[in-house]
Amino acid sequence: MTGNNGGTILVVGSVALDEIATPFGRVEEIIGGAGVYFSAAASLFGKVHLVGVVGDDYPLHELEFLEKRGVDLMGLQRASGTSFRWGGVYDYDMNTRETTHTRLGVFADFQPDLPVPSRSAEWVFLGNIDPVLQLHVLDQVIAPKLVACDTMNYWIEGSNEALLEVIGRIDMLTINDEEARQLSGSPNLSRAARWIQERGPRHVVIKKGEHGAILFTDESVFFSPGYPLEEVEDPTGAGDAFAGGLIGRLARAGAADPMELRRAVVYGCALGSFACEAFGPGRLADVSLEEIEARVSAFRHLTYFEEKPEGVT
Amino acid sequence: MTGNNGGTILVVGSVALDEIATPFGRVEEIIGGAGVYFSAAASLFGKVHLVGVVGDDYPLHELEFLEKRGVDLMGLQRASGTSFRWGGVYDYDMNTRETTHTRLGVFADFQPDLPVPSRSAEWVFLGNIDPVLQLHVLDQVIAPKLVACDTMNYWIEGSNEALLEVIGRIDMLTINDEEARQLSGSPNLSRAARWIQERGPRHVVIKKGEHGAILFTDESVFFSPGYPLEEVEDPTGAGDAFAGGLIGRLARAGAADPMELRRAVVYGCALGSFACEAFGPGRLADVSLEEIEARVSAFRHLTYFEEKPEGVT
Repeated sequence: MTGNNGGTILVVGSVALDEIATPFGRVEEIIGGAGVYFSAAASLFGKVHLVGVVGDDYPLHELEFLEKRGVDLMGLQRASGTSFRWGGVYDYDMNTRETTHTRLGVFADFQPDLPVPSRSAEWVFLGNIDPVLQLHVLDQVIAPKLVACDTMNYWIEGSNEALLEVIGRIDMLTINDEEARQLSGSPNLSRAARWIQERGPRHVVIKKGEHGAILFTDESVFFSPGYPLEEVEDPTGAGDAFAGGLIGRLARAGAADPMELRRAVVYGCALGSFACEAFGPGRLADVSLEEIEARVSAFRHLTYFEEKPEGVT
Repeated sequence: MTGNNGGTILVVGSVALDEIATPFGRVEEIIGGAGVYFSAAASLFGKVHLVGVVGDDYPLHELEFLEKRGVDLMGLQRASGTSFRWGGVYDYDMNTRETTHTRLGVFADFQPDLPVPSRSAEWVFLGNIDPVLQLHVLDQVIAPKLVACDTMNYWIEGSNEALLEVIGRIDMLTINDEEARQLSGSPNLSRAARWIQERGPRHVVIKKGEHGAILFTDESVFFSPGYPLEEVEDPTGAGDAFAGGLIGRLARAGAADPMELRRAVVYGCALGSFACEAFGPGRLADVSLEEIEARVSAFRHLTYFEEKPEGVT
């Protein structure tokens, strides 16, 4: 714990307006972006500083639910111009989606300058942005306990060198299965994780959407299934809510030892599943800690095959 | 337990010669088929009766490893003509494959007439064959404890009525995720499983390849991950080895209560993972029960997030 910022979380990521179409409906101009989904999940566990940028067209009042949860928006820059906009269409089984548009707007000139209070955050998440900007964030943070980072195919292809520099300076990479294969050049996920670990991060978390997530550490491999939801309304942001649950839980635990890391991955999967229950971050805005604990308990039952754990009848 | 056949297993399925190409190599005229992979796995746990058909070109000596494990080949018919042949090419990530040829040969006229000793088997697995033939098997078996059945898209499309009749008479359907979606018309796996359960089987096991398997029972949902192999040589037959491990373990346990079902799914995933370690059923021929127990133990550690289970350091 470092002074007044013990246990605090910093996230740098997009704050967007999304247009989403799934087999169940269609929404436009809904708040989204990695920074929003991450903050909505992580703020259930601890103090979050959100750093990002919005244009003068952004409905800031829709972020009030984050402020009520104590999210510090001092680092959310207001720039002149249009906000970042993203659009996607999901396939019938929700496992694949097509990006219909990406309009950077004010995000094109984003410089993540951290307000002083956020620099001493102990738990840092670098959302999926240009690795050059991720490096700029790393240059500003002071002695974090753990830095996690996300990325995507766009940066793997276009900014490989800067991305590898980031990877060399972080503790944990969260990445989806296809991206892990692409980054490492290995179709095998275990080998892909090892390839990444050899380049820096002690921990690699591979996100597999509805199939769950795998955590690779020095000591072991941990697998958490995806929660078998009967209604998936909109998977947008589930990966960022996953990261928010994961980092939030670690911040609350105050440690990243092997068993806390495992538990944190389960909390991540729980938050990712809640994110899918409604369009946009709405479900993350109203989910309670009790509901989260109940879902974590359901995960416990989901994989148990020895004897009845407490609470199973 | 019923007389001398207590705990015995019956499998009806293809006995084939496969041609397989993966990024790691290519083999031709290798023994395969659901009946062979299932028997190779299940015979590690109990007495197996294999019912199928081969042509006069089949290298029967290559099935000697099954006989040495006590597999009864009395029901393996020898017909005049060519054996069933299948060919497949795997994609670079081993998750998708293309069937290059299917030549039925003597399988086209296969009639699964059960030798008398196999009719009182307690644990029955109907491999992926014409549902009309699966019904013919069901008419011959005497009071089995549990009947499980596999199928594929070909029968879902072309023999839907007969397949639904089979489904109405079995205890467990093992099916892969895409087939479950196709059969039920629901993209959501939880709903797909419920749709199937409402039509007969108390238990539905959805196979998800490298992502593991989900067991849906009346009481609960259980998830077993796929084992994170670093070397996947050839996934052919993994689903049938999975079924063999599952049914074999149930036969050994002598019961299909909720916790035994969960354990059996893990044994299934363990056997499925061994099947991937070599081309054809070779690894299933030399794997030991000790190796299987060690892998089941690894599965235990793979999903544990409470406290250290015995044996974890």
